[in-house]
Amino acid sequence: MTGPVSVEELPEPGASFLAEIHEQPAALARLLEHRGEFREVARACAEREPVALRLVGHGSSDAAAVYGVYAFGLLPGWTALRDSISLTVYYGAGLDFSRSVVVALSQSGSTPDVVSYVERARERGALTVALTNDPGSELAVAAEATLTLAAGDERSVAATKTFLNELGGLALLAGAVAGREDEVARGLCRVAELVGESIPGLERAAGPVATALADVGRMYVIGRGVEFATACEIALKLTETCRIAAEPLTSTGLSHGPIAALDSTFPVWTIGSRDESLPALVEAAARIRGAGATLVASGSAAAEIEGAAWRLPVPEAPMPVLSPLLSVVPGQLFAAALARAKGLDPDRPEHLTKVTRAQ
Amino acid sequence: MTGPVSVEELPEPGASFLAEIHEQPAALARLLEHRGEFREVARACAEREPVALRLVGHGSSDAAAVYGVYAFGLLPGWTALRDSISLTVYYGAGLDFSRSVVVALSQSGSTPDVVSYVERARERGALTVALTNDPGSELAVAAEATLTLAAGDERSVAATKTFLNELGGLALLAGAVAGREDEVARGLCRVAELVGESIPGLERAAGPVATALADVGRMYVIGRGVEFATACEIALKLTETCRIAAEPLTSTGLSHGPIAALDSTFPVWTIGSRDESLPALVEAAARIRGAGATLVASGSAAAEIEGAAWRLPVPEAPMPVLSPLLSVVPGQLFAAALARAKGLDPDRPEHLTKVTRAQ
Repeated sequence: MTGPVSVEELPEPGASFLAEIHEQPAALARLLEHRGEFREVARACAEREPVALRLVGHGSSDAAAVYGVYAFGLLPGWTALRDSISLTVYYGAGLDFSRSVVVALSQSGSTPDVVSYVERARERGALTVALTNDPGSELAVAAEATLTLAAGDERSVAATKTFLNELGGLALLAGAVAGREDEVARGLCRVAELVGESIPGLERAAGPVATALADVGRMYVIGRGVEFATACEIALKLTETCRIAAEPLTSTGLSHGPIAALDSTFPVWTIGSRDESLPALVEAAARIRGAGATLVASGSAAAEIEGAAWRLPVPEAPMPVLSPLLSVVPGQLFAAALARAKGLDPDRPEHLTKVTRAQ
Repeated sequence: MTGPVSVEELPEPGASFLAEIHEQPAALARLLEHRGEFREVARACAEREPVALRLVGHGSSDAAAVYGVYAFGLLPGWTALRDSISLTVYYGAGLDFSRSVVVALSQSGSTPDVVSYVERARERGALTVALTNDPGSELAVAAEATLTLAAGDERSVAATKTFLNELGGLALLAGAVAGREDEVARGLCRVAELVGESIPGLERAAGPVATALADVGRMYVIGRGVEFATACEIALKLTETCRIAAEPLTSTGLSHGPIAALDSTFPVWTIGSRDESLPALVEAAARIRGAGATLVASGSAAAEIEGAAWRLPVPEAPMPVLSPLLSVVPGQLFAAALARAKGLDPDRPEHLTKVTRAQ
């Protein structure tokens, strides 16, 4: 029998979530200590001369897979895709894996269908790489090569530092394949500093936005290009920690239907980074305002999104492909503040456990 | 000057939307008249021996692209992906298109970034195929080969018959590549009959569901495997015609975060077809009930989803890969009924036009 727990012993709701957001610069620095391993695996990947790099993951790891499509497309110019797990695991489709590299993403390394996918892809000739926070996990056993996220134990159910390290790991791997490992590693080092410097100001700025939006039940999160990955992750944070129906959309996807649902009670979070996709985002923001929705502008180009009710800008990344590592932080801090405003506990969202074993 | 419009002349809200849902069997039959053209293009695609089939489209055409990944994966066993338009159009990434086939989907054939993508992919050596309802469109001019959807003019802004014909066209093309064109064409012919036979009963059954859910502001739409495409399209219909924040999720994606947002005011539409992915859907349905959410069960295996408040079953498709053409119909009819219950006009959703020119 355990005795009664005193109030003092109960951790404050969201304490781990917030602590782990703050810990991200240190976690990213720990990842960089492993860059030699990323270099070796990158060499094996390049030797395979793959026609496709297949990324798989669920939840935050799927958002990281979205990022991987851009990191590999922009750095070595490889065709990368978020592969269908169902085709291989459920349907046994006759896909040719022989000139494929698989990168499987899972914080826990225990997601059953990701493990099954890797086992089958490996049997069928793919070079399989696990990117996980648990190098002793089932996924690590299943894959030919394992790269550690080195993020340290993540206690909050809602992932933050493991997501940032998944992005960092994908950038490092893609950079090493492209022969630009030094530049990416230096860039990530600088990103870690910039994240650390930004957090206190962003945390203060996120509070009033959360207070104003405390009664909101639905949102869109809009990003284009590399920032679509950020949109996926921020929408997921808002859904799991704040119980908001938050859907990630590209700026163009928004205009092809979903914009019809907007009104003054349906706010939109936009992520604008200073790159070639910015004009599409700026145009979408004008349409959003035209629909009467409240706009939150984030990203390094937040200032260029006209008519925003709130702005949560971040510093420009040293390389455009690294922007999402900075752009996600205001969304994490907004989710933390909004969960608090709503009386919810991001460390223990309802119906979720840290290791998801759902098929 | 035009004179005043009398009440009689104003079309009833949603009249085109509903008429076009009813017209789908005829539209699918018109597509089948063009099977010879699909056969020829399939031959050209197969000669290319592509390492990747790249699908692009927005809105309903993106939902059809999701289907294309499964149709090409299951029939010829090709690796197909929804390609990133941004990588090629905005970022000028150095991807290798030489052994790629591109299938670009657009009802209007006028979506600017889809046209730009096709122009660049073609310059860089891809075999480019347009699948469009307007064979005289910019997209048709840009692509090396054009296949018509032959759906007839679509007047409702919310697409229905062009979506069904996009699925039919992709199945026909994938089937012809796999040397199974006859079987797929016969299957589609039977699907057209089954859709026609199902509509009256589904229309009656959708009414009470719409009445009960008339005040709902958010929903999830859950499908796995081939039915994830159906989930994407039904969610889009609900968003654009009923102003619901409706997000499509796979059954596993739901368990990796979004399930935390569910409660009794947040209904979930599930699509269960009798195939290898059904157990994952049935498991997800149990989790959804556990979260206290109201369940709507649709698909050919609707009866196997326990605890559903409503069931809208459809007949089993003659080939599992054709299931989505039947499974989408209850969602279309529910959207029509719900829009009416909410006093909205699916023919003219707010902030949308039939041809979307957004970048």
